[in-house]
Amino acid sequence: MASLFQFVLEGYSGRARAGLFSTPHGVLETPLFAPVGTQATVKAITPAQLDELGASLVLANTYHLYLRPGDELVAEMGGLHKFMQWTQPILTDSGGFQVFSLAARREVDAEGVNFRSHLDGSSHRFTPEKVMRIQENLGADMIMVLDECAEPLDRAYNEQALLRTHAWAKLCLEAKKRSDQALFGIVQGGIFRDLREQSAEFIASLGFDGHAIGGLSVGESKEDMYAMLDVVDAILPEDKPRYLMGVGTPEDLVEGIRRGVDLFDCVLPTRLGRNNAVFLRSGERLNLKNAEFAKDQHPIDEGCACYTCRYFSRAYLRHLIQAKEMLAATLLSIHNLHTLVQLAQDLRSAILRNEFEAFVGELGVRRLPNALEQNARIE
Amino acid sequence: MASLFQFVLEGYSGRARAGLFSTPHGVLETPLFAPVGTQATVKAITPAQLDELGASLVLANTYHLYLRPGDELVAEMGGLHKFMQWTQPILTDSGGFQVFSLAARREVDAEGVNFRSHLDGSSHRFTPEKVMRIQENLGADMIMVLDECAEPLDRAYNEQALLRTHAWAKLCLEAKKRSDQALFGIVQGGIFRDLREQSAEFIASLGFDGHAIGGLSVGESKEDMYAMLDVVDAILPEDKPRYLMGVGTPEDLVEGIRRGVDLFDCVLPTRLGRNNAVFLRSGERLNLKNAEFAKDQHPIDEGCACYTCRYFSRAYLRHLIQAKEMLAATLLSIHNLHTLVQLAQDLRSAILRNEFEAFVGELGVRRLPNALEQNARIE
Repeated sequence: MASLFQFVLEGYSGRARAGLFSTPHGVLETPLFAPVGTQATVKAITPAQLDELGASLVLANTYHLYLRPGDELVAEMGGLHKFMQWTQPILTDSGGFQVFSLAARREVDAEGVNFRSHLDGSSHRFTPEKVMRIQENLGADMIMVLDECAEPLDRAYNEQALLRTHAWAKLCLEAKKRSDQALFGIVQGGIFRDLREQSAEFIASLGFDGHAIGGLSVGESKEDMYAMLDVVDAILPEDKPRYLMGVGTPEDLVEGIRRGVDLFDCVLPTRLGRNNAVFLRSGERLNLKNAEFAKDQHPIDEGCACYTCRYFSRAYLRHLIQAKEMLAATLLSIHNLHTLVQLAQDLRSAILRNEFEAFVGELGVRRLPNALEQNARIE
Repeated sequence: MASLFQFVLEGYSGRARAGLFSTPHGVLETPLFAPVGTQATVKAITPAQLDELGASLVLANTYHLYLRPGDELVAEMGGLHKFMQWTQPILTDSGGFQVFSLAARREVDAEGVNFRSHLDGSSHRFTPEKVMRIQENLGADMIMVLDECAEPLDRAYNEQALLRTHAWAKLCLEAKKRSDQALFGIVQGGIFRDLREQSAEFIASLGFDGHAIGGLSVGESKEDMYAMLDVVDAILPEDKPRYLMGVGTPEDLVEGIRRGVDLFDCVLPTRLGRNNAVFLRSGERLNLKNAEFAKDQHPIDEGCACYTCRYFSRAYLRHLIQAKEMLAATLLSIHNLHTLVQLAQDLRSAILRNEFEAFVGELGVRRLPNALEQNARIE
């Protein structure tokens, strides 16, 4: 039987690629940026708004949904698509990242990891088999293997963690049952070139439907992150989609796509939106709470076609922020998500014209360090 | 010059009336329910969502907008319609109710009222002239006189307050400058039949563009409220719209329309929505946080055509509430607002068919006391 998941490469511009990834809930045009719906909702946004701002793929979190409302309840309600009313493709992570960053306590062994819920301290255990069952209950189009996300700068820890991550990857592949879900392996290895090579080669050898690059944008330098992408890009098979987990600034989208990445997700656009901050397409950020915007009649970003920019002034948005109105979070999140979704789409068009570098040059995307970027996968 | 504000009565069914009220921002079909946008936003709802759920008139609060961001800033930004991007008619109250219920301290005298801001304790003074200037800066289609909202059961206080309210009504009429704003007088008098008669007669004699009924739904019994509506209905001129301030449950809409009221507003639908509670069209309320809804695949209200009911299950809404997701407030507010807006529209259709009582009988709207209804004008 032919796989439900076909990845067709439409063109390259340098190493940047444009593709079409077929899933049971539609064909994804890559490269793309996926908004994060941690708890089966992109925070402060309706599915109708998400659709209007141009989103295609949406991510949801296995760790969170396993704890609340429970994956079995989601299955009973007809699966995640029906539950959250997102008709386009959904991707669930394996929960590995959250267990190693968010859970209250954790103890890892060769077969899995024990942890306590950050919600109520209750004890739980994730194994490769268990996270496959959970993700099958949730029913996303794309699912992830259980991995261990180590401190990126700690070599000894990364060596140990990699052994477990690789063993678990194999076990996940064996435990997978549903043919209507694409399983992605995850490359780890911190900022160590040889470990990343070793991991990319091993994961690539297992025959996954796609490949994720984990353990980046978690505290290492941008230079290290981009160097690791170069390493992995050279090894992973061309004919499978590549997903850079938890990364999503305008700059990182450009740098990732330049290095052959197809899929991105990040909570940053919505988290910034709930903290009064907006992206400009240039990568610059504004804090709209600042007094300088009190009488600013301009939209957030001139030329932006999002709902927020089409209708509302910076002065009004600042008023909503000052007045602690929830609508501020909604309107700012719409703008930030649209900026990344649209940027990925525009980069895709540039790739198809084989004008990636020229387009990036015109964009003039700037790199701006910001503390909010750290651990941008934890909402 | 003919007034910009024409009120055409299209039909009666008993004392219930259906009309068309022309304003500079469009023709309002009455009776109607107006969502409240206290701080120039209906909480947790975009103007696009408000439009989709069928709203026409939206209310905003003079007291709040005067304090923040300031009526002069709103004027500089092009007025309230442009600022908040509501293209249909807007009504502003005079701030009287908020000064007498929300401000930190107040001292009333014959010419006006001194008060301290609930935000920062700063000192301010409202006079009839001042609230006219503020409302002219805000630029709503319909504006209100300054009134004093007394304790409804305190006769002596009501007698005193009525003298001030009537004097201020005259002064507001004299101070009004813009011809593109309809000024409404406000009938007060607590639960005292003779005071209400006296007030309705005096206010009606001044020649306002419309008449508001204030000081109800603030602690008195439903019987007293409906009795006062009967008194006022018999006195106010038929050919001007009547606005019952701060009232908005399914039951009160029916009882108010039955007694000749054309316009309603209330924060209850959005406040309930932020507190996990929903109206059914029957008037019944559900608290969706309850465990009984955990696996309930039904919409909030079968047959409801709102966005929330068309797409989402009670189980999903309960999950959003449990997970403390902002989307819960948005989706529940959409449903509650739609329920009242649609109920008023359906009652209007029934009036035009001269079948008001038959339609109300079929509806079977129930009266359910609820602590949340008290002071339902304070968000």
